[in-house]
Amino acid sequence: MGPAVVSPELTPAQRVAWLRLLRTDNVGPVTFRNLLARFGSAEVAISALPGLLKRTGKTPHIPTITEAEDEIAGLARYGARLVASCERDYPALLLHIDGPPPLVSMAGGANLDWSRTVGIVGARNASSAGIKMTRILATDLGQRGYVVVSGLARGIDSAAHQASLGTGTIAVLAGGFDQIYPSENIPLAHAILDNGGALLTEMPLGWEPRARDFPRRNRLVSGLSLGIVVVEAAKRSGSLITARLALEQNRDVFAVPGSPLDPRAEGGNALIQQGAKLVTCADDILDTLGSADPSRHALFDRAWEPDLVPEPPPSDDDKSRLLTALSATPIDVDELIRQSGLSASAMQMLLLELDLAGRVEWSSGQLVALKY
Amino acid sequence: MGPAVVSPELTPAQRVAWLRLLRTDNVGPVTFRNLLARFGSAEVAISALPGLLKRTGKTPHIPTITEAEDEIAGLARYGARLVASCERDYPALLLHIDGPPPLVSMAGGANLDWSRTVGIVGARNASSAGIKMTRILATDLGQRGYVVVSGLARGIDSAAHQASLGTGTIAVLAGGFDQIYPSENIPLAHAILDNGGALLTEMPLGWEPRARDFPRRNRLVSGLSLGIVVVEAAKRSGSLITARLALEQNRDVFAVPGSPLDPRAEGGNALIQQGAKLVTCADDILDTLGSADPSRHALFDRAWEPDLVPEPPPSDDDKSRLLTALSATPIDVDELIRQSGLSASAMQMLLLELDLAGRVEWSSGQLVALKY
Repeated sequence: MGPAVVSPELTPAQRVAWLRLLRTDNVGPVTFRNLLARFGSAEVAISALPGLLKRTGKTPHIPTITEAEDEIAGLARYGARLVASCERDYPALLLHIDGPPPLVSMAGGANLDWSRTVGIVGARNASSAGIKMTRILATDLGQRGYVVVSGLARGIDSAAHQASLGTGTIAVLAGGFDQIYPSENIPLAHAILDNGGALLTEMPLGWEPRARDFPRRNRLVSGLSLGIVVVEAAKRSGSLITARLALEQNRDVFAVPGSPLDPRAEGGNALIQQGAKLVTCADDILDTLGSADPSRHALFDRAWEPDLVPEPPPSDDDKSRLLTALSATPIDVDELIRQSGLSASAMQMLLLELDLAGRVEWSSGQLVALKY
Repeated sequence: MGPAVVSPELTPAQRVAWLRLLRTDNVGPVTFRNLLARFGSAEVAISALPGLLKRTGKTPHIPTITEAEDEIAGLARYGARLVASCERDYPALLLHIDGPPPLVSMAGGANLDWSRTVGIVGARNASSAGIKMTRILATDLGQRGYVVVSGLARGIDSAAHQASLGTGTIAVLAGGFDQIYPSENIPLAHAILDNGGALLTEMPLGWEPRARDFPRRNRLVSGLSLGIVVVEAAKRSGSLITARLALEQNRDVFAVPGSPLDPRAEGGNALIQQGAKLVTCADDILDTLGSADPSRHALFDRAWEPDLVPEPPPSDDDKSRLLTALSATPIDVDELIRQSGLSASAMQMLLLELDLAGRVEWSSGQLVALKY
């Protein structure tokens, strides 16, 4: 392990600037990171935005200082605070996913070991055997010093949190802190905090979760975990999305098997056929996590360090060359640079403009496509 | 594939001699093969036995010609006949196990495709879900042209035979043809024959199966199959023995998963953790069998061809050297030859004597140990 990295804490003004930049229309994690790299700080990026936006012909909303301060104050009423990806309290495991959220809203969890985490996910309409299996696994993992991460959904998620209340659990929300879903789990969310667990979300206060926010939430469930256990999952379920995301994030994937006659076992059995580890007890999980590749330690490096490269703006000619090169097919930025003949910094600047104008779409952090 | 091998058919006198030699006390498959290699034919081996036995100080029973003829006649009354390992009707897959039985008693099965076979084994006290899963797999395998092999036991075995009656099934008995076990399955045995299926055993007519005969039978169930499917199996069950034997015989091992809360799923889940393929439907089996290593074709070579090497008998000095080298720990014959300095043929001859005298014990066909 290298020497400990001193993480800067944001000043209140910096935190407000980060939040304003992040909450600007069309600024997702990738664009945020590009803007920070381009302008050196969130404050400078915000003051540069009107000029950039003039070139795009669109006028996205940039939240005011007051709006940002209101969200921070609103979070405080829920016992939550904003943590930036450069700060010490930001979960190190999250830094190693594609497009880590620049800011997360967090409550509780101060004494949890965020580096010994296992995600447990599964069906909302779980069977009682599935619930029992979840309880056994979550209880045993907790007693062995692991924190259980899940998504606060009905069924398996709820059972996982419930069984690990006493040993530590983290619930990732698909909406804002004031929009716990399903509402029947508001008491469970309170119980998690009362027992020293944590709630975490990347969504703004007031955000009511929509269908597409759940897969987005799932990437944080797996991103916060060394490995993901799928207990009961039908084919084409959210739990399988979480498992796929976990694989992409270089995390272990475990699945509890079941009878092929039970539709809720289809997802888990299919995962095992594809290489997930079959789990019958906590030891099956701990054996793998314990013997994991030493390269796993890299997951705890605080590697997020944007480059700061001031640069003159690219020409209109550059822009039309880039638009010709782009299509509906996602393409790697490096490939785009080679094909278009643009410099890396000009490419970054132009993609930023297109991104702010809502004309491109990112996937996996490095693949970009035109939006139609 | 090489040219077809012309397999000799035994004359009636040769068949009687093979049977007499095989039914002599302490003559198992390995000793039988060694005797045939040493003396060139069963007839010559039988006439040499008294001389060999004099050296051992023991007097094992050699069945008379009449006794052998009586067994053959008795088998005929059950519609069964003796097939020798050198004959065309002998199942080719069986030749590739350690110590293939020199003779098997068989009835029926003349029109089965003995080269497209899948074994299905599992718990006697099967759950109804296990029975249903077995029926689905056996039916689908049958419809895809595969013959289902099993052990005629209660539970999974019976369900496998039953579901494949119309498409072809082979039952391997742990006892003689007149000692079907369990007796409640005598009607099922008749139904198998009536529908063109086969019954097969290596045990003598009249042999009532004992506990240790079941693992021995299991090696024929796997030996007759390209792959073995374990449907429900507790830990330390006969089905797991069959799976281990199948692996040793270079056959595929498949297992149906189940909830870790169900003790009958423990064996199957453990097999999957150890590398068996998780099965949810017949396609999972056929995909693997269909894409099997081309070296599998070697399983159909009729390779059983004993060498014929007449040799002077070894000295008493040689014998004491061998006894010093042997212990309770099974050791490879090649290793014994290297350590003792004996020639391969002298070693074979001495081990034969010790074997006939009941003083050594073979495992895996090539490992030998002193019996205590």
